Amino acid sequence: MTKKYVYSFKEGNATMRSLLGGKGANLAEMVKIGLPVPMGFTVTTEACLNYYDEGEKISEDIVSQIFGALENLEQEMGKKLGDIQDPLLVSVRSGAVISMPGMMDTVLNLGLNDESVKGLAAKTDNERFAYDSYRRFIQMFGNVVMEVDHGNFEAVIESVKEKKNITEDTEMDAEGWKEVISLYKEKIKEETGREFPQDPKEQLLMAVEAVFKSWNNQRAKVYRRINKIPDDLGTAVNVQTMVFGNKGDDSGTGVAFTRNPSTGENKVYGEFLMNAQGEDVVAGIRTPQSIDQLKEVMPDIYKQFTDVCTLLENHYKDMQDIEFTIENGKLYILQTRNGKRTAQAAVKIAVDMVHEGLISKEQAIIQVPAGQLETLLHRRIDPNAKVEAVAKGLPASPGAASGSVVFDPDEAEVMGNDGKKVILVRTETTPDDIHGIVAAQGVLTSRGGMTSHAAVVARGMGKPCVSGCEAIRIDYEKEEFQVGDTVVKKGDIISIDGSTGQVIIGEVPMVEPELSDEFNELLSWADEARTLKVRANADTPRDAKTALEFGAEGIGLCRTEHMFMAQDRLPIVQQMIMSETKEEREEALAKLLPIQQDDFEGIFEVMDGLPVTVRLLDPPLHEFLPNAEELIEEIHELKANGNSEELEAKREMLKKVRALSEMNPMLGLRGCRLGLLYPEIYIMQVKAILKAACKLTQRGIKVIPEIEIPLVGHELELENLRAIVEETAEKVLEEEGIKVDYFIGTMIELPRACLTAEDIAKHADFFSFGTNDLTQTTFGFSRDDAEGKILPHYIEQKILTDSPFIILDRKGVGSLMKMAVEKGRQEKEDLLIGICGEHGGEPSSVEFCHMIGLDFVSCSPFRVPIARLAAAQAAINHKDQTK
Amino acid sequence: MTKKYVYSFKEGNATMRSLLGGKGANLAEMVKIGLPVPMGFTVTTEACLNYYDEGEKISEDIVSQIFGALENLEQEMGKKLGDIQDPLLVSVRSGAVISMPGMMDTVLNLGLNDESVKGLAAKTDNERFAYDSYRRFIQMFGNVVMEVDHGNFEAVIESVKEKKNITEDTEMDAEGWKEVISLYKEKIKEETGREFPQDPKEQLLMAVEAVFKSWNNQRAKVYRRINKIPDDLGTAVNVQTMVFGNKGDDSGTGVAFTRNPSTGENKVYGEFLMNAQGEDVVAGIRTPQSIDQLKEVMPDIYKQFTDVCTLLENHYKDMQDIEFTIENGKLYILQTRNGKRTAQAAVKIAVDMVHEGLISKEQAIIQVPAGQLETLLHRRIDPNAKVEAVAKGLPASPGAASGSVVFDPDEAEVMGNDGKKVILVRTETTPDDIHGIVAAQGVLTSRGGMTSHAAVVARGMGKPCVSGCEAIRIDYEKEEFQVGDTVVKKGDIISIDGSTGQVIIGEVPMVEPELSDEFNELLSWADEARTLKVRANADTPRDAKTALEFGAEGIGLCRTEHMFMAQDRLPIVQQMIMSETKEEREEALAKLLPIQQDDFEGIFEVMDGLPVTVRLLDPPLHEFLPNAEELIEEIHELKANGNSEELEAKREMLKKVRALSEMNPMLGLRGCRLGLLYPEIYIMQVKAILKAACKLTQRGIKVIPEIEIPLVGHELELENLRAIVEETAEKVLEEEGIKVDYFIGTMIELPRACLTAEDIAKHADFFSFGTNDLTQTTFGFSRDDAEGKILPHYIEQKILTDSPFIILDRKGVGSLMKMAVEKGRQEKEDLLIGICGEHGGEPSSVEFCHMIGLDFVSCSPFRVPIARLAAAQAAINHKDQTK
Repeated sequence: MTKKYVYSFKEGNATMRSLLGGKGANLAEMVKIGLPVPMGFTVTTEACLNYYDEGEKISEDIVSQIFGALENLEQEMGKKLGDIQDPLLVSVRSGAVISMPGMMDTVLNLGLNDESVKGLAAKTDNERFAYDSYRRFIQMFGNVVMEVDHGNFEAVIESVKEKKNITEDTEMDAEGWKEVISLYKEKIKEETGREFPQDPKEQLLMAVEAVFKSWNNQRAKVYRRINKIPDDLGTAVNVQTMVFGNKGDDSGTGVAFTRNPSTGENKVYGEFLMNAQGEDVVAGIRTPQSIDQLKEVMPDIYKQFTDVCTLLENHYKDMQDIEFTIENGKLYILQTRNGKRTAQAAVKIAVDMVHEGLISKEQAIIQVPAGQLETLLHRRIDPNAKVEAVAKGLPASPGAASGSVVFDPDEAEVMGNDGKKVILVRTETTPDDIHGIVAAQGVLTSRGGMTSHAAVVARGMGKPCVSGCEAIRIDYEKEEFQVGDTVVKKGDIISIDGSTGQVIIGEVPMVEPELSDEFNELLSWADEARTLKVRANADTPRDAKTALEFGAEGIGLCRTEHMFMAQDRLPIVQQMIMSETKEEREEALAKLLPIQQDDFEGIFEVMDGLPVTVRLLDPPLHEFLPNAEELIEEIHELKANGNSEELEAKREMLKKVRALSEMNPMLGLRGCRLGLLYPEIYIMQVKAILKAACKLTQRGIKVIPEIEIPLVGHELELENLRAIVEETAEKVLEEEGIKVDYFIGTMIELPRACLTAEDIAKHADFFSFGTNDLTQTTFGFSRDDAEGKILPHYIEQKILTDSPFIILDRKGVGSLMKMAVEKGRQEKEDLLIGICGEHGGEPSSVEFCHMIGLDFVSCSPFRVPIARLAAAQAAINHKDQTK
Repeated sequence: MTKKYVYSFKEGNATMRSLLGGKGANLAEMVKIGLPVPMGFTVTTEACLNYYDEGEKISEDIVSQIFGALENLEQEMGKKLGDIQDPLLVSVRSGAVISMPGMMDTVLNLGLNDESVKGLAAKTDNERFAYDSYRRFIQMFGNVVMEVDHGNFEAVIESVKEKKNITEDTEMDAEGWKEVISLYKEKIKEETGREFPQDPKEQLLMAVEAVFKSWNNQRAKVYRRINKIPDDLGTAVNVQTMVFGNKGDDSGTGVAFTRNPSTGENKVYGEFLMNAQGEDVVAGIRTPQSIDQLKEVMPDIYKQFTDVCTLLENHYKDMQDIEFTIENGKLYILQTRNGKRTAQAAVKIAVDMVHEGLISKEQAIIQVPAGQLETLLHRRIDPNAKVEAVAKGLPASPGAASGSVVFDPDEAEVMGNDGKKVILVRTETTPDDIHGIVAAQGVLTSRGGMTSHAAVVARGMGKPCVSGCEAIRIDYEKEEFQVGDTVVKKGDIISIDGSTGQVIIGEVPMVEPELSDEFNELLSWADEARTLKVRANADTPRDAKTALEFGAEGIGLCRTEHMFMAQDRLPIVQQMIMSETKEEREEALAKLLPIQQDDFEGIFEVMDGLPVTVRLLDPPLHEFLPNAEELIEEIHELKANGNSEELEAKREMLKKVRALSEMNPMLGLRGCRLGLLYPEIYIMQVKAILKAACKLTQRGIKVIPEIEIPLVGHELELENLRAIVEETAEKVLEEEGIKVDYFIGTMIELPRACLTAEDIAKHADFFSFGTNDLTQTTFGFSRDDAEGKILPHYIEQKILTDSPFIILDRKGVGSLMKMAVEKGRQEKEDLLIGICGEHGGEPSSVEFCHMIGLDFVSCSPFRVPIARLAAAQAAINHKDQTK
């Protein structure tokens, strides 16, 4: 018994995707549910694999099955391929199991030749249409099947147009296309040594073979590699009867969504053009009409179409994007697919569909792309506004803002306090600029990456920031910046969009973030579905409040360094750093203690009853000092002015800066290394945490402090510091006479921590993955350096599909995480494990965290809703897998 | 049947180590082979474990076995413990299975009390001796067993000496010691609330229990944790009859080696003192006599002793370090152990013993500590010279050198060319200083780590270097440096030892490296035994020659960046870097091509027939430019001088330096990232390699080039660059019309490369571990920053036992390597895998490389002999394990 290699659309259905490809299976499904689909057949993926097995040859058997299917099609359509009177025309399209856009272009109008084109002209009574169709076919076939470069055809058209003294294709008459056709055929002969085939069956077999071959072209191979699609799936080929919307006033073509893709409103939305082809709608030559008007023009067709919409939505359980053609008063559905939509629409449609009983809550959760929701959670530029960016930097902190340009942080503070809206513009920011950032609506810097000071601080404050915008050249002296030929002076209004990195001159209309009722309803369903807890990264009581409002179940990362950088603390911190002896250092730390305690009290109070992970000081100390180059400049100035006392102080500072300077600060004296070399710093912080906890406990507030040691790579680092933390904590609790349960754990952010997690777990109550640093060390990429200079090239060269700092690298970083979870839980079965890197709010990364069995993710407050939804999606998609 | 918990020395042997501990088993072994060992017994490790099982109580059974053994001993010795006439005295010592020095101090003279001391005095006719012995016993017992602080006893002695108006212990008479004894006993009562025990059996049990307890003291626990000794072994206790060498002119004591520990000469070597105790020899009160003189003094004893030496050497198959005592004309052997020796002696002894038929070649190989050989391979400070270091920096490049201090590299070059010996002293070096380093005998820097420019360049040249010597403060203007109170001016002679980091004022005697005949013979045996190939890291023909002479079987790492830094190339390299366009860059590269080709020709010629791994450019480009701070200073100077043209050039340079500057250059734009962003650089290098290979092939020289792509973390990086390298290489071969087999592989130096080695192996002909970088990223340690500032603290705090940059971290870095080997070979069974980090010449790391199945190690030329020996040791020690 021979295998069945060719299926009529009538024989397939949606479940046969692996045999018929995605497109073929969907066309068959539409036929099956009775939709008016132009008839055709699908050559299976197995035929493609057979083609390769046979040494790139279509077997006799498959050829005869194709011709058999063609005969049936001809019979059904009452037309024959290549008929001189009324030829059947078909399209030939690839159809892989997993969509691979651009693998092979479509061949339309197959079946035309020097004879049948006459039949088409006669039948349609439109010679120009017929010959235009024919030349389009030769052009597509020549390019896609016979591999003649596109430029050859364009050159032919240009030469004929020139000769005819016309400029537009639309001005070309039938005679002109005939000349083009003749030249096309010559060109194909010249380029390939072969005649353009006149036999329609030969055309068909060549087109099928071209689709088979396209499975292994370079483009497809790279695409599969990048998208991890197996190489042994093969592609199907769809052969479908052509229909034409440009056959007269009872013909037309259009595109419509079953619901409004912008607002989500449950009402068909789209447009159509009478007597036109799909290309004409796209080209915008005539203005299309709203789909509503179809009701007037062709009420029956309109009724038929809306019925189709309902049918397809019911069938596919999602809003559909439908292409249709009306040929001589008959409606054909050419394609349906799930429609693209705005975030707002996605939420509304999903929730509406649940209320309509169309889908389940779980289906609604799955249907909304979590990542897209980010746009709803920040003030943003009105998507309907026409704005033109003058420059693009890094999207360092999401949200949009407008304000007057200010270059000086002091000035920003004064103006901000006066209620003015300002944008602080700096080459880069330092801790000395914090008060300016606080007062500004947003920050724009010309240097620095996604983890530059400006970026980190702005994200912490939930303020928009565009960083590393190298196109702007700042002149502090003149108080202006230049971008291209435009000069922007202090006081001029600009807008920045920290979600896209855009910089815009002038004010632009903004849209406020919307947490609609539907959104809240969807999130409440998500909360029921998910098993991952969602916490937020928050360093201030204000952040903590926002986090709570967005549904955070704790704070997964409270960074204490931002507290050190506030303007009132920085001088004390600097004094601490400049100390020559431990005693001097302790003196400065003693001044910081009550301030830190106050910080923690504020946060603990907000998070009453929920856990708060406080990370002890992490960054290298020189981050709190001015940079060396600046100091050298200042020293030269002071030398000129002759202010010897200040000069001496600056020189001292420079000496210290140099002593602390490191070749690679990311890999230097930071994290737990600071704690081991200067235990007095950690002791102060632990005292502040516990004293705060005691004070609030007395007031009846439940505090659950989790003290986190950063950058551990060796178990003894944690063992030593745990002892110090415990001793300090117990002493405070004893002094205060209060009982507070506290936990001690560690960031897992170095490869060695993952590799030795079973040892580290011995001394840890919890693990929290710091995937920013773990990505840096696993890849050997400094984020600051790579994000601007290396990763864009890598993505352009397709070495990476995404920045691993945005979407977690499962293969490398992920396998270390998996190892750490397994080894950690092998030592301590109930070890609490979370993630607090920025991946904690990115849906694909959240899914991975769910898959490897983490307990929580923690992300910036504004991303909490995204994480809640993504966690629910992961739980639903991996339901059958045990944790 | 009760278990046997106590063994007489007559009952044990050397194989019973786990039951009797190391010392007990060896004492028994010596008894067994008929040596005159003072008799005694051993309480087993099982007794110790039983003690803990019973809640820290010595069981009745064990007590009775101890007393039983004591009775037997008393019978044998004809003396009784505590006897008032002629008391038996014993020592009590711990004896763990694995030696744990310092776990518990020894208790000597046990058995003395207020009565038996009188017997001892009468019997020896030496009251002072008897009471001195007694007070020593109380002191040791009080401190070790009763835990009374040592200071208490010292204070007592001081007070009595003051009272007696004497200053030395030797001046104290019997009465004085009696007073001390009385005060000691009072002090013990005062401190512990207990009387000093007079019952010798109680003394014995207390001492045994103290040894048991010492197994779990803090010191022992930490020692075990660091040395990975299991906690459940327990310790044995040795009770041994005391003998005295100070009983008159027919008594004495001494220490001897069976061969000369300095030269290895096969002749007993040592010294002795008549009428003295071991302590006296150590204290140096009298000058001991050479062991040869014993022949004259006591010919019989001498004969007996040399027989013992022969016997022990034959028995232990190694040179022995023996302690002996002669008591009243009778020789006793108190201890034997393998003797410490110089590297030179180790080699000679091992080789001699093979020729003597005493040991096998394999045993000889195992016996020589490979790491120790380093001292033989460099010029070094004469070990017999008395030198005093004024400062200590990092031992950045081994070997020693003396010369006049010069601060300016140009001056160093002039003087060097004049044949003068100079030491170049700089705060740190840059590529601009290379010519000065070439001309100098050695380099001393006050800043920078083991991978600083000076260190790397000096190691490459095989020149001594001490880096990061922060104690010296250089004043370029005054042309001097200060260290402590000493000022060293230009032209003053200093010496540096790059193996130890020492800096010495003045010239010191040196010893030239010696590769003795014995050494070569040993290495030839090693070559037969090892399976690991040994290659060398070499960047110049001269290094390659040295490597060959030391037995290298190829070059495992030829770094091309050092070629870029030579003085004649640097301006072209800088021109290449300053280029604004690809065309400009290619122009500069075209100039470099013939120079690079020349470099490769020189190396390939030397390595005729052996593989040469050439690593394409690795360091970030800014390493070839001056640093920003220096440029700023220069710009300020030029501003003052008003030289506008040069000023502009420097400003341009500063702009470029800033544009190229990176936060963490280790993790920045370097390695294959350079090759992907600027393929023209790699193309030039590949051309140079292949053109050189072609030229030499024509001359009949066999070239085996292995082209190595550094810093790969993702398979597509390698796939893309492999395509570029292949295309370039094929083009050259076609142009030249010559066939050269070349290979393309990659450094494995990022965690992600290890984690995805199966993917990377698809595109690699070979892997070579870059464990320097792999250690940096796995630990998150920047070597430059950690080596000076962090690792010393870590080692002091016992978080790490060694720098992971010196001894490979098996648990973290090693597990990544193992993974990479397994994954790589899983994809490609015969994948060639080596290591070219500095660990490639360190014995413990070489052993690990053997264990995980590497094909080769590559190290600096001078370490090749060490690696050859270490590889052989690994092969022998892991013989039964399949590769």
